[in-house]
Amino acid sequence: MSVFTPVSEAQLAVWLANYSVGDLTALEPIAAGIENTNYFVTTTQGRYVLTLFERLPASELPFYLNLMAHLARHGIPSPAPIADLSDGYLAQLNGRPAALVTRLDGRSVERPGPAECAELGALLARMHLAGRSYAGYLENPRGSKWWRVAARAVRPFLDAERQALLDEELRFQALYRFPDLPRGPIHADLFRDNALFEDGRISGVIDFYFAGVDCWLLDCAVCANDWCLIDAETDRRLEQAKTLALLRGYHAVRSLTALERGAWPVLLRAAALRFWLSRLYDYHLPRAGVLVHAHDPEHLRDILALRAGGAPAPWID
Amino acid sequence: MSVFTPVSEAQLAVWLANYSVGDLTALEPIAAGIENTNYFVTTTQGRYVLTLFERLPASELPFYLNLMAHLARHGIPSPAPIADLSDGYLAQLNGRPAALVTRLDGRSVERPGPAECAELGALLARMHLAGRSYAGYLENPRGSKWWRVAARAVRPFLDAERQALLDEELRFQALYRFPDLPRGPIHADLFRDNALFEDGRISGVIDFYFAGVDCWLLDCAVCANDWCLIDAETDRRLEQAKTLALLRGYHAVRSLTALERGAWPVLLRAAALRFWLSRLYDYHLPRAGVLVHAHDPEHLRDILALRAGGAPAPWID
Repeated sequence: MSVFTPVSEAQLAVWLANYSVGDLTALEPIAAGIENTNYFVTTTQGRYVLTLFERLPASELPFYLNLMAHLARHGIPSPAPIADLSDGYLAQLNGRPAALVTRLDGRSVERPGPAECAELGALLARMHLAGRSYAGYLENPRGSKWWRVAARAVRPFLDAERQALLDEELRFQALYRFPDLPRGPIHADLFRDNALFEDGRISGVIDFYFAGVDCWLLDCAVCANDWCLIDAETDRRLEQAKTLALLRGYHAVRSLTALERGAWPVLLRAAALRFWLSRLYDYHLPRAGVLVHAHDPEHLRDILALRAGGAPAPWID
Repeated sequence: MSVFTPVSEAQLAVWLANYSVGDLTALEPIAAGIENTNYFVTTTQGRYVLTLFERLPASELPFYLNLMAHLARHGIPSPAPIADLSDGYLAQLNGRPAALVTRLDGRSVERPGPAECAELGALLARMHLAGRSYAGYLENPRGSKWWRVAARAVRPFLDAERQALLDEELRFQALYRFPDLPRGPIHADLFRDNALFEDGRISGVIDFYFAGVDCWLLDCAVCANDWCLIDAETDRRLEQAKTLALLRGYHAVRSLTALERGAWPVLLRAAALRFWLSRLYDYHLPRAGVLVHAHDPEHLRDILALRAGGAPAPWID
C-alpha cells in the first residue's frame, strides 16, 4: 500500500485512546497495495493493522468489516476488526474512515505446491460454509456489471488483438449467469499474497476488501489462476496436480456438484477476465499518489487466452 | 478441572463437523478446576479449549460467552468463543451444554511483582471500559445474596471463633451497598491462575464463568487479595508496592474516584468473604466426582481477618 493519508504516532496515540488495546509502541507504514492506506500498529496489548479507506464506498465498508468479524468468530483465520469504546469497527482518522484489525502471523508462499493448494482448498470451503450464516449482502463489486464499465474505460488503450479477446470474452460470459450455483460471501481476491502460512498451515487470509456475494466456485477459480499455474512466468496453464489438490481439498469439506463441474471452465475464464480488466485499469488509468508499480496486465491476458483456448480444465472425478 | 463428562476423539470429531475449525488432531483433558469439564482441543486450524458446562445454570451461559466474545472483539485477550455453522456459541455435547473457545498463549505467574500487578491493573481497567458497551446483564452470582445462602450452609461446620468472624462480617457488609460506585461487567475471579503472561505482558485472561455485573472496584479487590500479598504462605497483609502498582496501573487507564477510595477497605473485605465462603462450601460440601483437592479455606479466613483487622489498606494519593 502506498500511504495516501499519513498518520503520525501522536495522532494515532490520541485515536487509540478510544480503543481497549493499550498504548502505542510502534507504527510502520505498509508499502504494498494500491487501494487503501495501511500501517502496522503495535501496542502494549498486541499487533494490529490500521487501514484508512481511501476510495472504497463508505456504504460497503460495514459489509467487509462485519464479514471479517463473522469469519473470525467462526475460527477462520481472517483479521478480526477491533471494536472501539463506542462498540463500532469504523471510526474517522485524519478525515478517512479507518479500522483497526488484528495482525495475523505467517508468510505468504511464492511457489505453492500441491500441499499448500490442498490447504487453500479446505480453507476456502470452510470459509464458504462459515459465511452462510452471515447476514450482510453486497453483490460482488467486480462482477459482470463492473466488467462492462471497466471494459469501456480500458478498451481504447488496447490493440486490435486484445480488443478482440476482450470483446469475445464479454460476449462469451454473457451467455452464462449460473443462477443455480451455490452462492454466498466469497473473498474474490485470494491471490498468494493474501494467504499467510505457518508450519504448512494457513495462518491468515487477509485483504477482504474485494469480497462480495457470488458463486462460491468463483473463489476457487480466482485461486486456481494464481496458485496452480505450471509456472507463473513461463507457462500459465493449470498444473494438474496443484489444481486437483485445490479442488480435492475443497471437495473434502464441501462437496462440489455436477453443476459446478459444468461451470468450472467458464468461471476460470471469468476470474481471468476480471483481473485482466482491473490490471488494465490500474495500468492505463493509474490514480495519483500510487507508489507501487501496477502489475503487468499481460500476465492476466495470457491466462485468459489460455483458459479460453479450449484446453480442458482439470477437475476431480 | 475434573472430567465429569468424558468426550472421546470420535465423538468430538463428529461434533466439530458443525464448526469451521478444521479436523481434530489432539484432545487432552484439563485436570484443574472444579466447575466444568475442560479439554484442550487442537485442530488443523488452531488451538482451542472445549468446555462442557456441568452445573452453571443454562440461562447464565449466554452472558458469559457473549461477554467473552464482546471483550475479545475489543482487543481484550479473553478467550473468543467459536461460533458453529448455526452461528451459535453453545451446542450440546454428550448431554451437556458445550462451547469451544480459543486457547490463549502464555503462563500464569506464581509470584507476581509490582510490574505484573501494574499490567494487571491496566488490563482490568481496559476490560471494564470495553465492557461498558456490553448489552448483557447478570447480577454478580457470588454477590451479597449468595453470601447469605452460602453462610447458612457452611456455618454449622465452623467453630465458634469462625462463626463469630462470619457473622460479624455479614453484619458489617450489610451496612454498605455502594449504589453510586461505577459498575459494569467484572471478571470477579481474576486470581493469578486466571491470567496468562508472555514477555511480561498479559496474553490472556481466562475463566469468565464467575463474571457478573458489580462494582468495578470489586475486581481490583479480588486481585489485590491474591496478587498483592506480602507472602501468600506466611504474611497475607497487602504489600504496599504491589497494591499501589495495581491501583496505579488501573488509575492510568480509568481514573479512580473519591467514592472508590472510601469503598476500598470494605470491598477488600467483601472479596475475602466471598472466597472464604466458596472455599468453605467446596471444602465441607464437596460435589461427587471432583478429583482435585479443594483449596484450604483457612487461607481466605486469614485474609478476611487481616482486612477486617483495621490496618489501613494501601491507596494511591
